[in-house]
Parts: sequence; C-alpha cells; structure tokens
Amino acid sequence: MAVEAVESRTTASSSGSAFGSAFGPAVALSCRECGERSPLGPVFACASCFGPLEVAYELPTGDPEELRRRIEAGPASIWRYAPLLPVAADVAERPNLNPGLTKLVKADNLARELGVTGGLYVKDDSGNPTHSFKDRVVAVAVEAARTFGFTTLSCSSTGNLAGAVGAAAARAGLRSCVFIPHDLEAGKVVMAAVYGGDLVGIEGTYDDVNRFCSELIGDPLGEGWGFVNVNLRPYYAEGSKTLAYEICEQLGWRLPDQIVVPVASGSQLTKIDKGLRELVALGLVEDRPYKIFGAQAEGCAPVSAAFKAGHEVVRPVRPDTIAKSLAIGNPADGIYVLDIARRTGGGVEDVDDAAVVDAIRLLARTEGIFAETAGGVTVGVTRKLLASGALDPELTTVVLNTGDGLKTLDAVAAGPTATIRPTLDAFRAAGLQGR
Amino acid sequence: MAVEAVESRTTASSSGSAFGSAFGPAVALSCRECGERSPLGPVFACASCFGPLEVAYELPTGDPEELRRRIEAGPASIWRYAPLLPVAADVAERPNLNPGLTKLVKADNLARELGVTGGLYVKDDSGNPTHSFKDRVVAVAVEAARTFGFTTLSCSSTGNLAGAVGAAAARAGLRSCVFIPHDLEAGKVVMAAVYGGDLVGIEGTYDDVNRFCSELIGDPLGEGWGFVNVNLRPYYAEGSKTLAYEICEQLGWRLPDQIVVPVASGSQLTKIDKGLRELVALGLVEDRPYKIFGAQAEGCAPVSAAFKAGHEVVRPVRPDTIAKSLAIGNPADGIYVLDIARRTGGGVEDVDDAAVVDAIRLLARTEGIFAETAGGVTVGVTRKLLASGALDPELTTVVLNTGDGLKTLDAVAAGPTATIRPTLDAFRAAGLQGR
Ligand SMILES: [Zn+2]
Ligand SMILES: [Zn+2]
Repeated sequence: MAVEAVESRTTASSSGSAFGSAFGPAVALSCRECGERSPLGPVFACASCFGPLEVAYELPTGDPEELRRRIEAGPASIWRYAPLLPVAADVAERPNLNPGLTKLVKADNLARELGVTGGLYVKDDSGNPTHSFKDRVVAVAVEAARTFGFTTLSCSSTGNLAGAVGAAAARAGLRSCVFIPHDLEAGKVVMAAVYGGDLVGIEGTYDDVNRFCSELIGDPLGEGWGFVNVNLRPYYAEGSKTLAYEICEQLGWRLPDQIVVPVASGSQLTKIDKGLRELVALGLVEDRPYKIFGAQAEGCAPVSAAFKAGHEVVRPVRPDTIAKSLAIGNPADGIYVLDIARRTGGGVEDVDDAAVVDAIRLLARTEGIFAETAGGVTVGVTRKLLASGALDPELTTVVLNTGDGLKTLDAVAAGPTATIRPTLDAFRAAGLQGR
Repeated sequence: MAVEAVESRTTASSSGSAFGSAFGPAVALSCRECGERSPLGPVFACASCFGPLEVAYELPTGDPEELRRRIEAGPASIWRYAPLLPVAADVAERPNLNPGLTKLVKADNLARELGVTGGLYVKDDSGNPTHSFKDRVVAVAVEAARTFGFTTLSCSSTGNLAGAVGAAAARAGLRSCVFIPHDLEAGKVVMAAVYGGDLVGIEGTYDDVNRFCSELIGDPLGEGWGFVNVNLRPYYAEGSKTLAYEICEQLGWRLPDQIVVPVASGSQLTKIDKGLRELVALGLVEDRPYKIFGAQAEGCAPVSAAFKAGHEVVRPVRPDTIAKSLAIGNPADGIYVLDIARRTGGGVEDVDDAAVVDAIRLLARTEGIFAETAGGVTVGVTRKLLASGALDPELTTVVLNTGDGLKTLDAVAAGPTATIRPTLDAFRAAGLQGR
C-alpha cells in the first residue's frame, strides 16, 4: 500500500528502521499534530512540537484476497494481523500471551430487548488472557520493549493494566515493576502481584502515580525501563487496531455500520478508526460509511460534554464514577475522539452509574456475558442512543465489552432470590417453582 | 465406527433415538456397572442395578482424514466435535456460550523450572466464557435440556457451576434456578446471581443442598426441571471429552504421553480417558500408550489414598482444603479413576494447601497464567510426581488448569513489594531498581 514518501533515514535496512525487520511494516513515528516524522524508537513526543507520536506504516501491497487468506491461515490471536502491526513477522513464535480473536457474540436476545433489527453484536474482550482488552496493547508493547533492549516492563495503573503487564512480562521472561495507588482494592492488588514482578504502592492518587512515572523515565534510575503507557505508548496504542480487524473479519470481512466504543483516554477509539480505514485502504473490506460512537460514564464525561457543546477542546474533570477503568478526567486523545465522532456522523454520549449497573445486568440476563463497569457503560450508552434515534436500529451495530465483571464485583449488588431450609415445604413456600 | 449391536428399540428413527437426530451419534444410555442399555432420556441410574448411566455412541465410520478436515473446518468451540458428542449436528446455530478451544500453552518457562525436557503444556480452561471448564459440560447439558423440553435449568453448586449454569441458561433463553449453601463467599454469590435467574441459598452444607435437589427431582415441584449434574448428568459429563479432543488436535493430532487431571467427582478424568480412546478408535490419532494421573488436595484426597493403599474402593472423607472446587469427599467416579490410573500406568497423588499456593504462584510467575486453586493442585502434583519419578520428564506432558484465579483470590495472599511516597528518593531507598 502506497504511503507518502518517508524522509531519508540513517539506515539502509529494508524495513526502513534501525531495528531491521523487528517492527514489520512500521517505518517511522509520525507526529499527530504537525506530521513531522522521526525514526522508530522509544519516544512518545514530537521533537518539534511535543505532540503525540504514532506509528506510520508501509502496509502490504498486492492482492487483497491473498492477504485475506494469509490472515485467515494465521494464528488464532492478534498475531494473525502481524502484517499490519509494528511487530516482526515471526512474532507468534516468541513467548507471549497470544491475546485476541475474542468472541464476537451475535446478541439476538439483547437486540430483541433493545429493538435492534439490523444485527447487534458484542465484541467480548473479557475472553483475553487476563480478561481485558489491555492484553492486546501490552502484547505489542512487549515486542517493542524486547526490540529496544528494555529489561523491565512497567506501567502506572489502577487495575486492568497492572495485571496485563505482570502476566505478559512473566511469560516473556522480562522483569516487571508496576506502580499503583496504595489504596487499591485487594482483588486488583492480588491480580497485580501474583505474577511475581515488583508491585509498588504509591502514597497518593493515580495522578501522583503518573507524575512519578514520568519523573522516573527521565532519571537514570529508570534506565532500561519500558513503560508501556508512556515511552512505549506509540507501539502499545497500535494494539487496539486489532479490535477493528477482528470485528470486520468476524463479520465476514465487512465494516460494521455503527460501533460503540468506551472512552477513557480515547486512544482505543482512535485506533479502531485507524484500523477500519486501513482495511478499506487495503481492499480487505468494501468502502462504506460507518459511524463511531464514544461512551463515557456521567461521572467522568469530559469528551461527551465537549461533543454535546460543540466544543473543539476537552475541559478536564475530576472523575467520580463506578466505571474506574474509564475514569480519566483529562483524556489525552479526547480531541481526536471528537474529530472522529463528527467525521463519521457518530457521537459521544454518557450514562449515569445506575444505568451502568442496569446495563451490566441486562447484558448478563440476555446474553450470559458478565461485563465490567466499562461494558455497562457501552451497553447503557447504546440503549440511550437507540432511544434518542442517534443509533439506527436497522443497521449492523457492534458494542465493545472491554473487561470482566469478576474484576468489578462490588459494582453489582446481586444476591439470592431466597434463602430457605433444605425442605420441599420451604421451597414451596418461597413460591419460585411457577416462575 | 462399529460398536456392538444395540438392542431393539421402540423407534425406527435413523439415529436410534425417540428424539430424532437431536443427540447426533448417541444411540443409548449404558450402565457403567452391568452394561445394560436403556433409551436416551432424562435418567441417570440403571433400572436394573442403579449403576450410573453413560452415553453410548455409533461413532462416524469412514476416512479419518475426512473427519479430521471436517473438525478443523468447524466452529472455534467444542461444537467442532459435534460428530462425537450427544448433540445435533447443527448445535452451533442455536444460542449458547460456545465454550472450548481454549489455549494449550507451551509452558517452556515452567518446564525449565521443573526440569521437563519432553514438552510441557498447560491446557488453560480459564479462557472459557465463565472462566472454568464447567462451561463445556453445561453447554452439552443445555442441549439435552432443550431436547427433553425442560424449561428450567438447575444445579447444586459451590461456585463455578452456578455461574456456568446461570450464564448458559440466560443465553439459551431458559429459566434458571440454582441452589447454593447460604454462606457462600460474596464473589461467588454475585457470579451466580448476576445472570438474572433465581438463586436459592440453602441453610445447610453442600451435602444438604445435594440431598434437597435429589428430593426436588422426585417431586412434582421439580417437573420440567433439568438438573445439569443430576438428571442430565450422563449428557453433561460427556462435555469433558472435549478436553481430550482439543489437547490432541492442538498437539497436531497426537496423544500426549502423560496428562495430569484434577479429581473432584472423578468424572472429568474418566471422560478424558474416554475421549482419548475414541480418537484412537476413530483413527484420528496414532495408538500409543498414554498415562493419566489424577491430582487431589491433601485435605480431600480419598482417591489418592485408595490408589496408594492399593484399594479397589474409595473411603469417603470430610473435605478440608482451600481447593473448594475439588472438595468432594465421596467422589462418585472414584473407582473408575483408580481403574484408569492403574490401566494406563498413571497414578493419583495429592499435595497440601501450602504446595497448592506455591504452585499457583509458580505458574503465574513462569507463564502469566493465574490459576484457581484446582490449577494449583494439578501443577503442584505435577511437580511432586516429577520429583518422585512417576512422571517422566522426557515425555510430552499436559497439565490441566480448569479454572480462574480471580474466583479464588483469597487463597493467594499477594501484595505490594513496597509502598512509598511518590518521589525518586523514596524509590531509590526502596532498592528495587537493580533487581
Ligand atoms: Zn509535532
Ligand atoms: Zn446396571
């Protein structure tokens, strides 16, 4: 696939990188603000304008049918899309958690309840190795960490990411050291610690943890450390493209008409859009319009607020919601989310915590999928957008569930219908048999 | 595949069942004690001797290569093996959770630590929809429930099964009513209740719950109820065969040399043996010796005790172990487990709770897999059997992890390495950077 000419580089390697073929089709980092390119490396901000960097590719040219067959014959994981990711062609042969190719569930029961007739699907990323979509992005970051010679894998996290990094590092044979706020729930602490890496509680808020990590990267103490969501972020973020690839492949190499994506930093939504556009450019799917909708929790809805107000910028908020994995008050990719929602004719919407819990129960009751709070947000927003008419019930709609209800048990107060003595009389008296 | 002639039946249907082709290749129920056959139906005990019934088949004849291709082209779930299960050929088209085809992880890091050179694999069933192997057996039971016209799906459970039944019933559009001891951990209660079925706490022990369920089946109150692990048990149990099928297919259509399986009721181990033997009989794998090893927790090791003592019978015990999903003191299939361990040259071994926790940590640290306590039992027993020489380190070995560490968090006390203020000085003082 032709991309604009890449500026002269100091290396003559065929992949256009100082790292040989380690980054596959990736050829450079490109500034999302000013467009300036820089060589692939462990950097995340533009040298000219400090804008965020993203990976630029020379994607495969040639017969789409041939590429499609190659993908379909590939591993049952995100690595089937290695030709479209910043990873080596033989990535699947190195020890990693092989995330991805999670189920795209045709949610006919839910569709009936919501009045969707055009086909409703739940992309259920709770099926990943540590039960959240974070396994996708971390897997790509691990490859970059290996290539850059980092020996410690790190991150700041409030939950899902800590477990994903710990597990991925263990399997890859890297040391890990993960930073969390010191007062995290016990369950998340266990998940972060059980893989045997170092886990450091920071006396402070998540913002304090982040600030500390940025300091550490700039200090000799942090030498050899790859922070997946800081200095490896350009590579890490690309992992989310695989959600777009899988959805289209699982729909029979077809774009969805509408897709509802949770918005935390906003990165995932922008990468899904990037992935969809790549598939079109490669001829792997027919070029048809699609609409992308962002979903936030009312208690942390800066992007939704900006969208509704018609603003070009996102005003930071102080998060207060049960959807903690989406509780980023100052989302780095918020303005890009606004662009994409407006360009595709989609939108950004939010629901309150009660609606989140209702939606978790609705999805569980209809499809047997127990989503984390972020999944309650997307399903709740889907319901709201259908009611408002923003989502067309006659079109093919995909809703993302990015995590697992087992990790946010406290959000759902569910208990026994009845408690009885072990006798038939007691059971009869409870009145459950005729329901 | 030729099986001995099936006794005359009252139906002339081609599948040999009053239910048409609903049970696929299954032709009868067969008593595991006296061998007497009875028609397929919602029964679980032999009319002659009260022995347990199991499903008997007329398995596909013809070219193994053809069958292998058919399986490989099938769905990415247990339903690819529909030709070998008591389900209709079009089973995948009905709404269900599509469990199975979980990862067979080549555990090279663990192999190095344990000194295994012949290839060590973990079959990781935490990847199933509700994160335990129970999704496999429940999925087959749901099909039987539909065929028999049951409208309520039920079970007695202490955890994994309750969630699996609740989720499967929700997706299948069946009502569910699940019985649990009233004092279950909150997390398991949420998992059992969130899918919207009825959940009944029973004031008593798990044994009381079981007794109550048996009463309910015999009473008009229980009419139309399918208890997956009681009156649907013969069908339900067959779901475990898929573990054997998947392991062999994932090894490249090859039998493992050694396999380590957890023993609760013992049913899973006997069905894995049945599945392996079927693959040999069908010509899908080469006929070579394999050894099956059962794994128990020391606090509930009646089968291990009988094996070591050379007994033919299993003396019941009162369970006292953190491996609650294996805590069945009077295992129904214990004697069959003894038979299989002895016939194949395998064995049955147990480890104490401390070794279980050690093994959970070992597996997490080496392979990034967070197992439930039952997985700690199999990995711990594997280590013990390697040390004793019962397992040959030069042979291909498969260890089962049947559940998810997220469901037994309390078993693993894992926490931060350090808790510090958010400064580089504090981090330096913690002494973690050079590790
Ligand atoms: Zn720039
Ligand atoms: Zn009998």
